[in-house]
Amino acid sequence: MTHEALADLAARLPDLRLLTDAGDLEHYGRDWTRRWTPAPLAIALPASVEEVQGIVRWANQHNVALVPSGGRTGLSGGAVAANGELVLSLARMNRVLGFDAVDRTLTVQPGIALETVHTAAREHGLIYPVDFAARGSCSIGGNIATNAGGIRVIRYGNTREWIAGLKVVAGNGELLDLNRGLIKNSSGYDLRQLMIGAEGTLGIVVEATLRLTDPPPPSQVMLLALPDMDALMQVFALFRAHLSLQAFEFFTDIALKHVLAHGAQRAIDGDHPYYVVTEFDAPDERTQEAALAAFEQCVERGLVSDGVIAQSEAQAAALWRLREGITESLAPHKPYKNDVSVRIGAVPGFLHEIQALLTREYPQIEVVWFGHIGDGNLHINVLKPETLADAQFIAQCEHVTKLLAQTLQRHGGSISAEHGIGLVKRAYLESTRSAEEIALMRGVKAVFDPNGLLNPGKVFA
Amino acid sequence: MTHEALADLAARLPDLRLLTDAGDLEHYGRDWTRRWTPAPLAIALPASVEEVQGIVRWANQHNVALVPSGGRTGLSGGAVAANGELVLSLARMNRVLGFDAVDRTLTVQPGIALETVHTAAREHGLIYPVDFAARGSCSIGGNIATNAGGIRVIRYGNTREWIAGLKVVAGNGELLDLNRGLIKNSSGYDLRQLMIGAEGTLGIVVEATLRLTDPPPPSQVMLLALPDMDALMQVFALFRAHLSLQAFEFFTDIALKHVLAHGAQRAIDGDHPYYVVTEFDAPDERTQEAALAAFEQCVERGLVSDGVIAQSEAQAAALWRLREGITESLAPHKPYKNDVSVRIGAVPGFLHEIQALLTREYPQIEVVWFGHIGDGNLHINVLKPETLADAQFIAQCEHVTKLLAQTLQRHGGSISAEHGIGLVKRAYLESTRSAEEIALMRGVKAVFDPNGLLNPGKVFA
Repeated sequence: MTHEALADLAARLPDLRLLTDAGDLEHYGRDWTRRWTPAPLAIALPASVEEVQGIVRWANQHNVALVPSGGRTGLSGGAVAANGELVLSLARMNRVLGFDAVDRTLTVQPGIALETVHTAAREHGLIYPVDFAARGSCSIGGNIATNAGGIRVIRYGNTREWIAGLKVVAGNGELLDLNRGLIKNSSGYDLRQLMIGAEGTLGIVVEATLRLTDPPPPSQVMLLALPDMDALMQVFALFRAHLSLQAFEFFTDIALKHVLAHGAQRAIDGDHPYYVVTEFDAPDERTQEAALAAFEQCVERGLVSDGVIAQSEAQAAALWRLREGITESLAPHKPYKNDVSVRIGAVPGFLHEIQALLTREYPQIEVVWFGHIGDGNLHINVLKPETLADAQFIAQCEHVTKLLAQTLQRHGGSISAEHGIGLVKRAYLESTRSAEEIALMRGVKAVFDPNGLLNPGKVFA
Repeated sequence: MTHEALADLAARLPDLRLLTDAGDLEHYGRDWTRRWTPAPLAIALPASVEEVQGIVRWANQHNVALVPSGGRTGLSGGAVAANGELVLSLARMNRVLGFDAVDRTLTVQPGIALETVHTAAREHGLIYPVDFAARGSCSIGGNIATNAGGIRVIRYGNTREWIAGLKVVAGNGELLDLNRGLIKNSSGYDLRQLMIGAEGTLGIVVEATLRLTDPPPPSQVMLLALPDMDALMQVFALFRAHLSLQAFEFFTDIALKHVLAHGAQRAIDGDHPYYVVTEFDAPDERTQEAALAAFEQCVERGLVSDGVIAQSEAQAAALWRLREGITESLAPHKPYKNDVSVRIGAVPGFLHEIQALLTREYPQIEVVWFGHIGDGNLHINVLKPETLADAQFIAQCEHVTKLLAQTLQRHGGSISAEHGIGLVKRAYLESTRSAEEIALMRGVKAVFDPNGLLNPGKVFA
């Protein structure tokens, strides 16, 4: 049956690149999570919208599940194929299709890397402002599937804000041309917005029109050392009141330890429990003085113990590396990742409860905190002790995640701020969405994908 | 049956305010369109979320259609009740429920007027930036239902960008608490976004958490007179390149004639076919000089014939009145309204085709153009000649709208930029959305409102 189905696919789409080697199945069958054993049926690498449509129609006839796949940098298992699915990789559809100077939009294929989008925008004197550390490998299609956030959300919002149009292949193979770059379009339900963040379960994005904007004014980057957790949101409030922030990121001493061990350069001497990297507009002397004044006010109030302001682009990059290098520095420790959020106003209370919870539940285990605290988004990475077996470690982390989910629910938070639900967070969706919401979501899923072939098992079982 | 049903409603919700007087039925049964004869069953004015839920549950049991209703300033018939529906007016649910200084959000009931939201935001030193002429009467619930745009979209986007959370009563009476003010929330489908612009057909908004932002820097307002249509987008491009625009609005000499006849003050002498009101950041001398330089460059290139820059707040208000007073000045002429959009890049070609179309099809009829041209949004108001009967006039306008819809389709535009589809544009939805999209929208509607009781007949028949 399997061979028959694949033979039929090859016959229908003779130019379609199909991979079935064991190495390819393993490579394309997983993402940055390492919890599932890849077991796809095959890998299809379409080169056109028509081929994507052909694959979806074929899947419906043969009842084969599809896993849409981009840069596979996901952290929630959204692109994992572990159950005989056909991986539909958009990797070959990675070109810029057009730029419109009047609309200030860039139209791209979904497999294009975020960094390539950045470069293309800058060639036209504009920027695409969504940005995060995986920029070199992640694809814009995956960014759309998870409504990717990152390090500039405080200024520019999430991916959702930057999508002017989407072409999507729905579950029946039909091509939808959603919003077509319009700024104003109050003509029925905004299905474009519904697709963003749907993790490939409602349709396959085959083209995106991205809004670009003017580059920000010259900025400064500052690293701050904080004496305690309570200072964190107070420093944020003070900086936000006096400066136009582009980013406000935090991490702990344990995170710093790992990133330094991984080759980054120490920028502040001494031991401090918390650090902040912030970037803000500093086009002139007045704003630079305001930054210094904000810093001094923080020091006077005992909210900041030490700080350094980058004097060059190289130093700014070095300060940023202390934050952006964390994820990579932790990878060898097989971290279990939580990616949670609450309203900014709820952060202080939430942080205290979470700290108590983690200290209690992981007494012998190293826990690394960092995140986009100006957006209420906290990344918690639990590092696997070498002596602990994988399965045992994950079981323990799942237990704690259950408790974390309860805390989140009390604070009105989200179990996934920017990674998506995928497979990893599926069991905890109820902590963030009510039974009624989930029932409606299932209903919507059935409308777009009646045969349940688009990324089945992701978001909900 | 009708009396029985109403008696049951009164018995279930003894505190619910219910109106059945002929005058009330007429008052609440219609919006700013005047094409349908109001014929609601009754008017319910709930004072709480629980009462709204009770009404929806009652409606399901008695199979009574509901028309959610706000300020009834809509121009597409979205709030018209002409078929024995119960009007569910949110007019009494019009309070500010809370302000959060850290989140910078304002939580409000749906019946609050947009202008009251503006005032409440300013009391906290912030702004809610969505704005348009109906601000004093329209309600935030209606703004959300149509994803209202207005005069600041060029800077701040549409209503959609400013909704941090929505409480919505779904078609079965269940209360949904969508997104709860989170900045980052990648936990399943964003049903909040689906509700925005759904014109009350998927659920009834009973609470909204609005994002606020810093007030813009001091601005200047300029009125420009243009010699021809081709100059319009060139002036826009030049101004946008040199200034940080807050608004860029255009209107024609015919619009000016009406607004002057309605009491506004002429600001530029002579006859000019096109005018632009623009507002831009002007915090310092440098930006003021840039504005003057942009203006002079336009004059040198023959793109602008004359201009005036406001020297006081009063003069700025007077210049704005020339644009904002248009709708009101046209009301006595029973205008037939088109509210269309194309991508900004498609505006010049579209304008030429539309001008030819309107000149040909309305040879004896006055047509008034104005709109948010920086967003690709054009309002076309066709004035009824006194000698023409209402029905005959509308039939002629519907014929032209059919041709206009075909032109829009060729240009990838939208039949409703910001007014919504309602009843007025229902027959033309196919010009903007494909058959496949409409089928999916119907499917979504059935998920949220299985008995089809929420604003039936609006958006689609």
